[in-house]
Formats: sequence, C-alpha cells, structure tokens
Amino acid sequence: MDKTLKMSLLFDFYGPLLTQRQQTIYQLYFDDDLSLGEIADQLKISRQAVFDVLKRSGLSLEAFEKKLQLVAKHQIQQALLNEAYEQFVQLRDLLNDNDFVNPGFLEEIQNKIRHILSDS
Amino acid sequence: MDKTLKMSLLFDFYGPLLTQRQQTIYQLYFDDDLSLGEIADQLKISRQAVFDVLKRSGLSLEAFEKKLQLVAKHQIQQALLNEAYEQFVQLRDLLNDNDFVNPGFLEEIQNKIRHILSDS
Repeated sequence: MDKTLKMSLLFDFYGPLLTQRQQTIYQLYFDDDLSLGEIADQLKISRQAVFDVLKRSGLSLEAFEKKLQLVAKHQIQQALLNEAYEQFVQLRDLLNDNDFVNPGFLEEIQNKIRHILSDS
Repeated sequence: MDKTLKMSLLFDFYGPLLTQRQQTIYQLYFDDDLSLGEIADQLKISRQAVFDVLKRSGLSLEAFEKKLQLVAKHQIQQALLNEAYEQFVQLRDLLNDNDFVNPGFLEEIQNKIRHILSDS
C-alpha cells in the first residue's frame, strides 16, 4: 500500500492516542497537505521540530498497529465484504430478468452491505 | 450489554495495550473465571492487589474506547451485517425453489458474509 495512504489509515484508527500537538501537525501535513516549512511557519517552530514530531507520531501509530493489528484485520474484512458485495450485485443483475424476488428486498440487502463498506 | 461481555470485548480490542501483568490477571479473571482469591494465591499477592489491578485495567480499557470508539463502531457494523446476513438467508431460501440461480454462487456469497461475522 502507498505509504501516505497507510499512514492516513493508521491515523484514522489510532490518531486520538497521539498528543493534541502531534495530531495537529499530523493533520496539517497529511490532510491539509502543507509542507514542513509551511507548518513550521504557521506554528512558529523549526522545520526540524515539525519533522521530528511527524517522525515520532508515525512511529507511535505503527507501534499501536503492531500491538493491536486492528487496521490489518479491518482490511482483510473489507476485502472479503467487497467481494461479497460485487457478487451480490451480479446476483441482483441476474434476478432483474426474473420476477420471482421483490426488487425492493434485493435493494435493501445491497444497501446494507454498501453502507458498511462506505462507513468504514 | 452485560458488563463482563463488554469488558471482554474491550479486552479483545485493546488488551495488548495493557502491561503484561495486567493482561495476565485480566485473563485469569475473565477468561479462566478464577476468583480474586484464587488469582491472589496463584500469583502470591494480596486479594486487594488483584482487585486493584483489575480495576485499573478496566479503567484503561474504557479510556481507550472513549478515545477510539472502535468497539462501538464495530458493534454497529456487526448489527448491520447480521441483518444483511439474515436477509440473504431468506433470499436464498426463496431462490431454492427456483432454478434461475446457481446454488453454488449463493452459497459462496453467504459463506463470505458468515466468515466476516464469525471472524470478528
């Protein structure tokens, strides 16, 4: 996986365990896409200090994942649920030519699976 | 939710963030169902010390959940996925009287959803 995407995902899961300052700098860098220099200017600290905070925060997030493995489990489940969803869509297409099943019922199941996928 | 079930679930998610000693005592109490006195005897510490460790561990687990909300999110998703699964089973029963869809395909989707539910 792309490093930035991976760090964002770790931050989504474990971000609240970082200090408030770490969270702020992390978000400025990864969400708002500011450069180290821009963050340094904004917070009136050195570029090196920004770099150190990002480095330490990243190591903390990776240490949480190493212990808890919640992101890894989540990704395995998402992959499986995505497959089930795609297959369900195929099934629904197949049943569209058939009036044996109420289409509203099919839509309800599909929406539930899609809702879980988009929420997580 | 039942308090013991809730604490077990919190431990499943965040247990590795406790100290090794906290984890050991937590497991003896909640998984092996030993009494405070039995744990005290086994570890050669006082009953009060066991109680204090359990109390502190529980507070730590609750503090992690308060920050991360991963158990709450997980439970909402599980409830939704359970509903989708039950409806899918109904759909499958409905389609059993119909030879429009390959039964193996239905089984494959059902197994994937069940697998996610049982794994989590």
